[in-house]
Amino acid sequence: MSDLAMRTVGFVGTGVMGAAMAGHLMDAGFKLRVHNRTRSKAEPLIARGAQWCDSPGEAATGADAVITMVGFPSDVEEVYLEPGGIVECAAPGALLIDMTTSSPALAVRVAAAGAARGVAVLDAPVSGGDVGARDATLTIMAGGDEDAFKRARPLFEAMGRTIAFHGGPGAGQHCKMANQIAIAASMFGMAECLAYAQATGLDRARVIETLSGGSAQSWSLHNYGPRVLNGDFAPGFFVKHFVKDLRIALDEARAAGLRLPGLELAELLYAELLAGGGGELGTQAIWLLYADAAEREAAGVTASV
Amino acid sequence: MSDLAMRTVGFVGTGVMGAAMAGHLMDAGFKLRVHNRTRSKAEPLIARGAQWCDSPGEAATGADAVITMVGFPSDVEEVYLEPGGIVECAAPGALLIDMTTSSPALAVRVAAAGAARGVAVLDAPVSGGDVGARDATLTIMAGGDEDAFKRARPLFEAMGRTIAFHGGPGAGQHCKMANQIAIAASMFGMAECLAYAQATGLDRARVIETLSGGSAQSWSLHNYGPRVLNGDFAPGFFVKHFVKDLRIALDEARAAGLRLPGLELAELLYAELLAGGGGELGTQAIWLLYADAAEREAAGVTASV
Repeated sequence: MSDLAMRTVGFVGTGVMGAAMAGHLMDAGFKLRVHNRTRSKAEPLIARGAQWCDSPGEAATGADAVITMVGFPSDVEEVYLEPGGIVECAAPGALLIDMTTSSPALAVRVAAAGAARGVAVLDAPVSGGDVGARDATLTIMAGGDEDAFKRARPLFEAMGRTIAFHGGPGAGQHCKMANQIAIAASMFGMAECLAYAQATGLDRARVIETLSGGSAQSWSLHNYGPRVLNGDFAPGFFVKHFVKDLRIALDEARAAGLRLPGLELAELLYAELLAGGGGELGTQAIWLLYADAAEREAAGVTASV
Repeated sequence: MSDLAMRTVGFVGTGVMGAAMAGHLMDAGFKLRVHNRTRSKAEPLIARGAQWCDSPGEAATGADAVITMVGFPSDVEEVYLEPGGIVECAAPGALLIDMTTSSPALAVRVAAAGAARGVAVLDAPVSGGDVGARDATLTIMAGGDEDAFKRARPLFEAMGRTIAFHGGPGAGQHCKMANQIAIAASMFGMAECLAYAQATGLDRARVIETLSGGSAQSWSLHNYGPRVLNGDFAPGFFVKHFVKDLRIALDEARAAGLRLPGLELAELLYAELLAGGGGELGTQAIWLLYADAAEREAAGVTASV
């Protein structure tokens, strides 16, 4: 299948991220067949000419490629592997790409199921959040068959900026887990840095500014720090999804015989935040675990360190 | 005292950092009176015309300003407060500046001792390490009297690039502690990200490259990550000094009624590394806690997570 032949793309999962990504594919000239659990979220794409499909399997039927951007590993398993699902309905030679952040072990299983039917499956989770999806500046971390990755390039280039192949099935998910492990530590580093600064009477904005030039610099501190100071806990990336990611990373680390105490602590802190009512907030809400009772209450969170 | 009058500077502590900083002051035209526990380390400065002094007090005698860059809070206490020390020997109106990373509570005590004798004391620790000291690009975080800070500017500008005043006595040290808290988390985030990538069979250099464009980005990952991959554990900043800093930060956090589990974990991990023979290595040696036995042994470290 040449790039020119890849004209029809099934797209399953048109939430905030998926809808923006699907829109870029339409801008790039691909014909879309879309499905989403809640149809209303797909309406703007349908209004632009995307074909509505009643199921993931129907979206896959006759498509040259299928992209999925769903919520949890259980959703990935369902849309690909259930009877009448994507793997069963995909045309021979089709290219399947799961861009959900999901379990590496599941990515291996889905790839094997695809291979048994002659369809290549890539795992290609992203980082960059809603802004990256909207601006087509996502980082895309891919695993699977390398030839399939090359065929997928025109699709990836319509959605992302940094596009990297990391190895066989599951390698994209593993790279995303490495990404989440690094972020998790810098998120509570940010929160504890600001908590210390506040408790010792410093001007936190000035501390962030002073630290930006030096070795304490991180994307988390310099992008989320100011949001924390403004009391802005709106989700760029949901706490409930981050907890899912951290648990996948922990499971995989344990399966690899690895002890990662920093990751364990991150999972513990974010799980507290989730249990304490913070699931629908953005990941910067980790700050609330360190905030005073009034600030926590105003944000609707009961958990604290 | 006008800036023009500040001609003679006593400089106590001419180790790797201090010698480079003192050299910049000489370049800027200040006359130096130097003291160091080990005289040989001051010889290059003496060869350039600095006046050798046999004690900290002697270095302070007749100086318009005194700068100290010593090792531990116990050293700070000794050089400033002992009989015949800097506070006792300083000329009335002199400006004393401790640039050691030290205890905020001690900074308050030294400032009070200075005030009782009519000399202003600033705490002004730095970040940027040996490279920042050599290139005069240090970040300088100052606390104390704001007029004294203004008088000190010509000295700071000879040594640093980002120069920020953070409040009364101890505020410079508190800002440095906030800095170390953020760094500590990003250091084990870096190590755990790379440990996960290695255990799951990824190319770690490619992972660092992929992550640099996105939200997992940190100075630690992108500067220390490649050193770890090269097996380079040479000190930019010593583990033994970082452990000291983390313990000061923990003490201060507890005194402020603050629980910082990320900092607690960082202190635990770096203390393990120190106890396991890593004290003379650079802070990136945190990686060795996650490395395989052969790599740890090659680096002379026995500790692991």
